[in-house]
Amino acid sequence: MNISELTPAQARALIRNEEWTKPTSGMANGYIQTNLAVLPKELAFEFLLFCQRNPKACPIIDVIEEGSAVAALAAPDSNVKTDIPKYRIYRDGEFTEERTEVKDLWTDEMVGFLIGCSFTFEEALLKNGIPIRHIEEGCNVPMYKTSIACTKAGRFEGPTVVSMRPMTEQQAIRAVQVTSRFPSVHGAPIHIGDPSKIGIQDLNQPDFGDAVSVNEGEVPVFWACGVTPQAVAMQVKPSLMITHAPGHMLITDMKNDEFSIL
Amino acid sequence: MNISELTPAQARALIRNEEWTKPTSGMANGYIQTNLAVLPKELAFEFLLFCQRNPKACPIIDVIEEGSAVAALAAPDSNVKTDIPKYRIYRDGEFTEERTEVKDLWTDEMVGFLIGCSFTFEEALLKNGIPIRHIEEGCNVPMYKTSIACTKAGRFEGPTVVSMRPMTEQQAIRAVQVTSRFPSVHGAPIHIGDPSKIGIQDLNQPDFGDAVSVNEGEVPVFWACGVTPQAVAMQVKPSLMITHAPGHMLITDMKNDEFSIL
Repeated sequence: MNISELTPAQARALIRNEEWTKPTSGMANGYIQTNLAVLPKELAFEFLLFCQRNPKACPIIDVIEEGSAVAALAAPDSNVKTDIPKYRIYRDGEFTEERTEVKDLWTDEMVGFLIGCSFTFEEALLKNGIPIRHIEEGCNVPMYKTSIACTKAGRFEGPTVVSMRPMTEQQAIRAVQVTSRFPSVHGAPIHIGDPSKIGIQDLNQPDFGDAVSVNEGEVPVFWACGVTPQAVAMQVKPSLMITHAPGHMLITDMKNDEFSIL
Repeated sequence: MNISELTPAQARALIRNEEWTKPTSGMANGYIQTNLAVLPKELAFEFLLFCQRNPKACPIIDVIEEGSAVAALAAPDSNVKTDIPKYRIYRDGEFTEERTEVKDLWTDEMVGFLIGCSFTFEEALLKNGIPIRHIEEGCNVPMYKTSIACTKAGRFEGPTVVSMRPMTEQQAIRAVQVTSRFPSVHGAPIHIGDPSKIGIQDLNQPDFGDAVSVNEGEVPVFWACGVTPQAVAMQVKPSLMITHAPGHMLITDMKNDEFSIL
């Protein structure tokens, strides 16, 4: 089975039937994959406003309204209670368990948020000949908490989390151009160069994910990361929060290229 | 007094003191002006989601959370209860009155939405030598209800309203380029050419604003319009809704150029 050639519906069916419980990287090539955050309805307005105010870190792809489990715009035949390979459950802000479905937990009082992920712009970078070090090294992208505060909304506030990809200065210029075309999936980098200027002490010690090599002649390039809204939501200690497990995304029917504005 | 050279704070002070009660077009040149919609808190999540799902028609610039009347991000020293020259009050979906301030009406149970307006991209079009007919003819831009349905969110649904500017085909190509740089204030046009294809029967009979001349060799170019969210919200018949009167906008401290992504 060549997982890159699956249709989104085929990929979701495999996942729903628990025939695929691994990360979704490389599946259904060319289609948007999303992060998931499910929160109690009483937090929904503040969280949506937080995402609206921090669009680079929290690009909303779809919202699953109360009483539904279908991503009506992004994947009309989905069931988001079953179509992610691995979920994480947090109670009062504490991680409690991982599960392969959340049918009994996701009640009519919950609202689900699908948030864009960097897979979309990584495809565009690769097409432009820009290397992605963590793909080359077969690990997760390195992610760091920064000194860049998100814009507060209601109870939601905290630092911006960034992902980092090393490249040459020439490639960094091209990377700015390429990712500026995708403002609704993280957009342009938020920093290039000296990590200490955004509060990162040691590139070899990421807060999430894995460290990667930065070669001679390369600079680190930082993008706002979809881990930000989860990290911020956890601080609010919702009675129940459901997320995807890292790397285990929802595969939608929307094409990456649809999200380019140019 | 040259109103185009006022700072935003000076312009808001004139308006707050009721020394200026006319439309704001041409004031504080270069700064974002916004539409206003104030709704009861129980509708806030659905309305914000409606805007998020229809970003071309409903570009959110700032949200004034319950218990506040300050546009904290867009104009930190504003008082949105007084800083608009003319407000309109709707009760149960019916227009009831116009006022120059809404101090007693805007209670802690209300949430205010500031929505981008076409003044931003019109400045960019003019800088690129593209004529704006309704400015030339000294009238309001013509606006039309279309057959293009907005994406529904909760109780909010209805047709997209567009504004129209006639120009040559060559200018239309440049206009697509210029306005694509501003995805957060309506962005690229949603239609060029034959009005009947989007359900408009007669360009001379706009649903809002004034008809303008379309000269020999020109095509009509249509952009999603900020009147859309007000028209849609009215259908929901909120117990109380406060909006700006047409053309009487909130002047913010944010520069038009800050909203260009390229």
